[in-house]
Amino acid sequence: MPWTVDDLDTPAVLIDLDRVEANLGRAQAYADAHGLRLRPHIKTHKLPELARLQVELGAVGITCQKIGEAEVMADAGLDDILLTFNLIGRAKLTRLVALARRVRLGVAIDNEIVARGLSDAMAGVGLELPVLVECDTGAERCGVQSAEEATALARIVAALPGLRFDGLMTYPPKHRTLQVNAWLSEAKAAVEAAGIECRTVSNGGTPDLYSAHQVAVATEHRPGTYIYSDRSLVAGGFGTFEDCALRVLTTVVSRPTDGRAILDAGSKTFSSDTLGLPDYGYFVEYPQLVLEKFSEEHGHVDCSASNARPAVGERVTVIPNHACVVSNLFDTVYGVRGDRVERAFKVAARGLVQ
Amino acid sequence: MPWTVDDLDTPAVLIDLDRVEANLGRAQAYADAHGLRLRPHIKTHKLPELARLQVELGAVGITCQKIGEAEVMADAGLDDILLTFNLIGRAKLTRLVALARRVRLGVAIDNEIVARGLSDAMAGVGLELPVLVECDTGAERCGVQSAEEATALARIVAALPGLRFDGLMTYPPKHRTLQVNAWLSEAKAAVEAAGIECRTVSNGGTPDLYSAHQVAVATEHRPGTYIYSDRSLVAGGFGTFEDCALRVLTTVVSRPTDGRAILDAGSKTFSSDTLGLPDYGYFVEYPQLVLEKFSEEHGHVDCSASNARPAVGERVTVIPNHACVVSNLFDTVYGVRGDRVERAFKVAARGLVQ
Repeated sequence: MPWTVDDLDTPAVLIDLDRVEANLGRAQAYADAHGLRLRPHIKTHKLPELARLQVELGAVGITCQKIGEAEVMADAGLDDILLTFNLIGRAKLTRLVALARRVRLGVAIDNEIVARGLSDAMAGVGLELPVLVECDTGAERCGVQSAEEATALARIVAALPGLRFDGLMTYPPKHRTLQVNAWLSEAKAAVEAAGIECRTVSNGGTPDLYSAHQVAVATEHRPGTYIYSDRSLVAGGFGTFEDCALRVLTTVVSRPTDGRAILDAGSKTFSSDTLGLPDYGYFVEYPQLVLEKFSEEHGHVDCSASNARPAVGERVTVIPNHACVVSNLFDTVYGVRGDRVERAFKVAARGLVQ
Repeated sequence: MPWTVDDLDTPAVLIDLDRVEANLGRAQAYADAHGLRLRPHIKTHKLPELARLQVELGAVGITCQKIGEAEVMADAGLDDILLTFNLIGRAKLTRLVALARRVRLGVAIDNEIVARGLSDAMAGVGLELPVLVECDTGAERCGVQSAEEATALARIVAALPGLRFDGLMTYPPKHRTLQVNAWLSEAKAAVEAAGIECRTVSNGGTPDLYSAHQVAVATEHRPGTYIYSDRSLVAGGFGTFEDCALRVLTTVVSRPTDGRAILDAGSKTFSSDTLGLPDYGYFVEYPQLVLEKFSEEHGHVDCSASNARPAVGERVTVIPNHACVVSNLFDTVYGVRGDRVERAFKVAARGLVQ
């Protein structure tokens, strides 16, 4: 007897593998058509199995944010990893050196203190760590603020033992591809005018994945959420609900009033991320239901706009606003095709905060 | 050489054990003075060690929301557990029966479908499962809507094999103790007028813990967050930052501009819960810093209101808006006294969604 979705207890995270393969195939075909390398960010799935699939389909390597994620991926055979985070402190740097000895590892930095820490850690190792300088092209998170700052930091990196300046990296603002291209082009030209080779320009993000070619200076792109998509991406014009591969199976446990239903899944399942939407998820079977708020273990559903309303005990499927954070809340997710459960995945890179 | 907070990598969750003991002692003294039983909700800490401490200090038992949490606590020797959640489905009910065979177990329900499922599962087990009827006293989550509905459900429970009606339970609205007392008093009287004994009336929540005696009809109280407190409780008038036992140690990894600092901890560490506050946490060392937003792995700090500003590499301590959700995001937390790390705790009941 096949194992089906009906056999799973709730709440459960379903990963539709047909949709995953379609999403990855489409992105790789786009990247290939534009001569762009893909280096997917594993934050969305946190699964070595899907990271391997991304590489099998043509990705040049992967992106991680934490040393612990990179260690898990290296253990699973991923051998080309970019760490896009300023790494500080003896514990992390010791692990970084160990990792650099066994995989092709690169890092991104945005300041001299981090550069000097990396150099001190790499001293005497006999390897040169490739370093990208992170650029704030408008997202206002990390990153140097100008082409001049990028050049100054590139000079420092190029002069430090144990490091090799490899290029520029950005986490871009949404829907400003031309601005991002102008910023990075100017910075690359400034670095090269200083006599420093700039081999890699790494751009990122799913919202502009299919206009990534407009950032013509970029040599690689680091999309994350494209593998699963989610409601916030659909709301932003990226594909449709049909593309959403991560779905949460829940049970209606209470119908205290005609207008209210309560799910067995709250912020401990979905997180509290809205990503700017007025509510928390899309009900596949009941599009008019509104997932209006969460307690930690309860989802509060406003049924008032829907003629069709689920009964106590009924299972309903929710596409969350933000898929990545759901992956981090589950130890196990289930790979499905249609109603058939193909396999359980241990979320091996979940919860790795360091 | 003692193990100190400086030896921990970041981000790390610190649990100040002196503060924990003070918070628990104060609450137990209050409950004892008012003849109220405490049945703490373990959702805040998810640690068997602290659940045992709560019982050692006088709690009559514990409250869990998920079967998985109750199983972990039973494994650790906790033997009086209330499950305040409508349990549905063969998988959960099979586990419920196994648990009822080894600990004193009670459950709360708010509808007949759940009652009949529990009864079917308990049939032939040779035990009577104590059942509380959950009442919606104004929080608008689960619960029957009136004294009449409470009585009707109490009758059903009392008549079903394998179940024993034990009383009423509510998760109350904040700061409406008199309304809650009136609601529960009326319901209790109605149930008793139907000839059904109502031994337990279980109230909950930390915000009104120290006015719980105003809900005079209640026989027990189920506070959760009181053990750690958090910024949202302090903002609501519950104690001070000095009482906040859970703190997050983070490192400043970037200072891209004069006004901006970036932490190595974002929503994957803190969750996105604001609990109604305009930002995400309180900086112990820099009270004027504003934790204005999160990426998953980055905390965005607005330094503009603060003359004192942390440097790259500096460690800062944050009291989160909501402590409970932080516990669920870490596999390990550290019990500290001052700067000394007394022990590491595995968060054994973390991530148990079913």
